[in-house]
Amino acid sequence: MELWFAERHTQNVKFSIRVDRQLYSGQSDHQRIDIFESKEFGRFLTLDGFMMLTEKDEFIYHEMIAHVPMAVHPNVEKVLVIGGGDGGVVRELCKYRDIKHIDLVEVDPLVVEVCREYLPSVACRLDDERVHIRHDDGLRFLRSVENEYDLIIADTTDPFGPSEGLFTKEFYGSCYKALKEDGIMMNQHESPFYEEDAITTQKIHQRIISSFPISKVYQAHVPSYATGHWLFGFASKVYHPVRNLDSVSWNMKGISTRYYTTNLHSGSFTLPYYVEELLKNVE
Amino acid sequence: MELWFAERHTQNVKFSIRVDRQLYSGQSDHQRIDIFESKEFGRFLTLDGFMMLTEKDEFIYHEMIAHVPMAVHPNVEKVLVIGGGDGGVVRELCKYRDIKHIDLVEVDPLVVEVCREYLPSVACRLDDERVHIRHDDGLRFLRSVENEYDLIIADTTDPFGPSEGLFTKEFYGSCYKALKEDGIMMNQHESPFYEEDAITTQKIHQRIISSFPISKVYQAHVPSYATGHWLFGFASKVYHPVRNLDSVSWNMKGISTRYYTTNLHSGSFTLPYYVEELLKNVE
Repeated sequence: MELWFAERHTQNVKFSIRVDRQLYSGQSDHQRIDIFESKEFGRFLTLDGFMMLTEKDEFIYHEMIAHVPMAVHPNVEKVLVIGGGDGGVVRELCKYRDIKHIDLVEVDPLVVEVCREYLPSVACRLDDERVHIRHDDGLRFLRSVENEYDLIIADTTDPFGPSEGLFTKEFYGSCYKALKEDGIMMNQHESPFYEEDAITTQKIHQRIISSFPISKVYQAHVPSYATGHWLFGFASKVYHPVRNLDSVSWNMKGISTRYYTTNLHSGSFTLPYYVEELLKNVE
Repeated sequence: MELWFAERHTQNVKFSIRVDRQLYSGQSDHQRIDIFESKEFGRFLTLDGFMMLTEKDEFIYHEMIAHVPMAVHPNVEKVLVIGGGDGGVVRELCKYRDIKHIDLVEVDPLVVEVCREYLPSVACRLDDERVHIRHDDGLRFLRSVENEYDLIIADTTDPFGPSEGLFTKEFYGSCYKALKEDGIMMNQHESPFYEEDAITTQKIHQRIISSFPISKVYQAHVPSYATGHWLFGFASKVYHPVRNLDSVSWNMKGISTRYYTTNLHSGSFTLPYYVEELLKNVE
């Protein structure tokens, strides 16, 4: 038998993974949730048919969104993760003993439940005593928060459907307000290559720079995402992502990673010319 | 009508591009050659059904294999390109006025002919008076050459079929011999993610380090290649690819690029930890 999961990266490009079995399929109040088992990518999670993560390459995305700010900010104690119900970002953050409190605001309780059951290598630290899970809309949660977090990580789905509100000027402004005076906000920034995606990347950047004095974009190679070229945003009140990187102190912590290194950290902020231009056009 | 070109990146992963028309299909003594027209990637060339280049993203591969050595070596006058019958590498090299002579050794005359006709934006500089095209096997051509070139670029297909001999110890040894005392050899180095590809990457690296005192690997984002994560090799007798990068002098030349920058140059040599380990295992 041949069973293939296919995702349209554009109307004219399709990426397909051969599937052994569908392990789970359900519908929450927010979205359709599926878990598949595959030989090449291990288990993978889709929401409304869109690839969220695979066991084989999720380390890339999660390490790159979590360790970059942690190697820059000298003293992160309180973190807010918006989205990220799979637990991958939380798993990476839990590697830091200095972090005292993590709020995870995931709107969909079923995502958390399904990932706990089917993706234990990702969800494994959701039970850490420092982690506090709230099922609420990220934007609504933020409205009542001020001067509270050292770090906010917006680990969202693409900017339509349930996550649409998490890519607005209001959202980035609320993050700014919720951060302490030297806080950092991280976000997934989509891919720069296909035209429609490039426009989305521009829009996100434009909105973030109107809220934060420092806003830089960096990249990683994520094979299961469209084009494999994925961008992340580093927005900050004080710290510069490369000039304030403290490699010595990060490497002293002995954090184990498979993608992130402090060398790669600096390298990942050097962008292709066409991506630089794309971002400059809205600066 | 829906017409899709599909390539198996592994037995269990498929990448598909919707095609408007097949513009050309032919069989040479060496391989099957096809040209397709597509909305998302423009025209693209396949050899024996494997993606070689697309109009939309070929600039990435060609710029990254050509400009990296040109920004390091202080005085490239004579270059050998092995493979590269599409003309993309030659087009980038022809941007340098200092280069006096380019030998292009492409085994298959039909590739050159087809690219001249269907991919003029790639093949456009094959008629430059400095370019000398020879239809010969790369390895055979090299046997009689000694101390001749400042730069050799091995712009080959994957390491099976017609290109198999261009990934052997003998080939790298012959390149070493054909280079002047401060020469540089560049090669495409496959992708590090899928297991089979990772093993190929390792083998190539192992063979190159046995011939060259300096051998470094760097990366780029090429959407139409497997996983989008593509590696290149920089092998050299004297120059280090990052320490000997002369950004000022390269930027003074006013070479126009869409992907390469001298900042990106340095960044592209910072590899993910798992790729570093893959390479270290054979060093």
